Amino acid sequence: MKNRDVESEAAGRKSNIETDKQNISFLYLSEEDMIDAGVLNPGRCVDVMEETMGLMEDGDFLMGGPYNDAHGLMLYFPKKSPIENFPVNNARDRRFIAMPAYLGGRFHVAGEKWYGSNGNNRAIGLPRSILMMMLNDVETGKPLAYMSGNLLSSMRTGAMPGLAAKLLARNDSKVLTLVGPGVICRSSLRAIMSQRFDIDTIKIKGSSPTSANAIKMKEYIEENYPQVKNIVLCKDMEEALKDADIITEAVSCKEGEWPEYKREWLKPGALVISTSTFNMEHKSIVDLKKVIDNYGMYENYAEEDNVGYDENGDRLHTGCMGEDFVYMVQDGLIERDSLTTFGEIIRGKKPGRESDDEIILVSIEGMPTEDVAWAYECYTYALVHDIGTKLKVWDHPYAF
Amino acid sequence: MKNRDVESEAAGRKSNIETDKQNISFLYLSEEDMIDAGVLNPGRCVDVMEETMGLMEDGDFLMGGPYNDAHGLMLYFPKKSPIENFPVNNARDRRFIAMPAYLGGRFHVAGEKWYGSNGNNRAIGLPRSILMMMLNDVETGKPLAYMSGNLLSSMRTGAMPGLAAKLLARNDSKVLTLVGPGVICRSSLRAIMSQRFDIDTIKIKGSSPTSANAIKMKEYIEENYPQVKNIVLCKDMEEALKDADIITEAVSCKEGEWPEYKREWLKPGALVISTSTFNMEHKSIVDLKKVIDNYGMYENYAEEDNVGYDENGDRLHTGCMGEDFVYMVQDGLIERDSLTTFGEIIRGKKPGRESDDEIILVSIEGMPTEDVAWAYECYTYALVHDIGTKLKVWDHPYAF
Repeated sequence: MKNRDVESEAAGRKSNIETDKQNISFLYLSEEDMIDAGVLNPGRCVDVMEETMGLMEDGDFLMGGPYNDAHGLMLYFPKKSPIENFPVNNARDRRFIAMPAYLGGRFHVAGEKWYGSNGNNRAIGLPRSILMMMLNDVETGKPLAYMSGNLLSSMRTGAMPGLAAKLLARNDSKVLTLVGPGVICRSSLRAIMSQRFDIDTIKIKGSSPTSANAIKMKEYIEENYPQVKNIVLCKDMEEALKDADIITEAVSCKEGEWPEYKREWLKPGALVISTSTFNMEHKSIVDLKKVIDNYGMYENYAEEDNVGYDENGDRLHTGCMGEDFVYMVQDGLIERDSLTTFGEIIRGKKPGRESDDEIILVSIEGMPTEDVAWAYECYTYALVHDIGTKLKVWDHPYAF
Repeated sequence: MKNRDVESEAAGRKSNIETDKQNISFLYLSEEDMIDAGVLNPGRCVDVMEETMGLMEDGDFLMGGPYNDAHGLMLYFPKKSPIENFPVNNARDRRFIAMPAYLGGRFHVAGEKWYGSNGNNRAIGLPRSILMMMLNDVETGKPLAYMSGNLLSSMRTGAMPGLAAKLLARNDSKVLTLVGPGVICRSSLRAIMSQRFDIDTIKIKGSSPTSANAIKMKEYIEENYPQVKNIVLCKDMEEALKDADIITEAVSCKEGEWPEYKREWLKPGALVISTSTFNMEHKSIVDLKKVIDNYGMYENYAEEDNVGYDENGDRLHTGCMGEDFVYMVQDGLIERDSLTTFGEIIRGKKPGRESDDEIILVSIEGMPTEDVAWAYECYTYALVHDIGTKLKVWDHPYAF
């Protein structure tokens, strides 16, 4: 109805503006398009995460907030509300989060992941989180892509344990333990298996040895990794951790019900990766090498949570290893400099593994830069291979 | 290539899950679609903003952060960078912002506005900000709509001065002053004219009486509002403010170069609306009625900026009236309770205008709840009238 106005406005501008620069369109990629664009390629995703961690070490990125270190901005649902129909926090992981970032280097692109999460989704056959991803030209701000973000996000999250396995596991690693065998753990498995070719034993620790997720994981491994000769469904954490070369965790649980690891269960040379929540006594891990993705982000968490001490004067734990590392620094248990980032290892500023006996702890939280990187990789593949739906924002911006 | 897997996965689930609930699609609305869906209707937008402010007073909303009051999460570009090709803050308003919110009542929907802004865009014929808007089901998080957000955002921003004029202007208002005659001011004009039918004189204060924007605004008024008998291009601020019943400001300027208003230039009964930046001496406005959109949001700004005092011990100003109000409270110049929100007036908790002589100051910053409200209104109109492009995220979520 107003198209005529748009046209006349545009005509008036043609004299002094290159109109082809005014046209804005973007690429929409459904989940199926994302699969066609290679989103499920674990080895490639590990490579791109390595690039990303390197660029972050260079400072060639932006995250949100005045200190460039915000994980995202969350809508917090209250536990209860007097208002009829108000959405309340009545399920695990109920939240919305906006996660913006810019990544430099060959990416040179801004973007944002935006998602809503609700544990009740499972009951109707939907993923707990439903994620959408946007990419934007960092110069003009115009949209480049809008894409289904579920696979993207699972893949980049799993790729980080894959990167840890590549950089920090013993080269002769044979035994892999999966703690919390859900979607993220499966993605971690795929990424680790793309880097470590000698793994012949996989131990699975679900909520029980017969949990549906544990059995599904076992079947998945049997189908996809014939080189794995032994698959063990573990009855407890001690059994799961004993003799493991690589342990990767992705547990979703209630506050305070994190799995507990004991130092004596870890074999010399073990690589212990956390992407979600688990717990170890602070004093027991003082001397272990600690690798993290981003210190500032954990500092933000620590500041926000501001956990205190128990009646014995011991620091309360948070379930988030990186955040606990910050408290250990604050409590004088370790030096800030004893923490190593992926980027420092990749850029050769600090060593990775220094001996076959060293036990290494890795805390991974996930950052919006990783989403931007993997989204950009899929987007450029889609562009070249003509995948997706091109959509117009406008031919010429309407000016009223 | 993986479609077969998706199908078999889905088939396996069909037995115990209603598969129609797994299907996710959303509506894409281009700028042209948004126009067809009524985004440019100023009177309706004022009504929806009134609903929104009422719901916010009820507490029936969520904004970001633990205190539900975050305006958004910003990517800050540095002034300079040693990194080649790093995007730097070399133009006015260069930033990205993610603005998530939930709005209750009949809306009961989550959403987010995401935009990039760069003053250099003007040179290539693009708007300074390019905005996209998403709406999401608040229960599952699934996307409902992805839409061009430029008109949406301009309209909701202009509708708030329209709402101020409706609630707070003298009923016999005849003289309207526009300070900073750009896109937002034009939107404010349209909204105010939808509420106040006796306006016969409009004064325009641009960067100069012959600025392109000022002259364009004059032509626009001549074309669209034949009831306006006098249009005055003002040479200075004093001329612009004298005799005005309603003053609305939307100035984009460099830090510290805000227009300065003097108390003695305001006529008794004047309504002074700020949507961007201007300045008045704090001591001169102590006794005036002050109306704001959201106190917590300005408190956040004040905390982040943390401006100090000049060499005379006078508080430094910020150009943002609402933020300055917070400093006035902190400095003991006014009581917190002397500030009134739109919502308090709408819900009858505090009076609006109490006399024909009262001068009222209104500070409007803009909130993501407003975007969600107006986006939802356009989205539901589009659904009913079959406007836009329906796009699939997935038929069944892929589970690897």
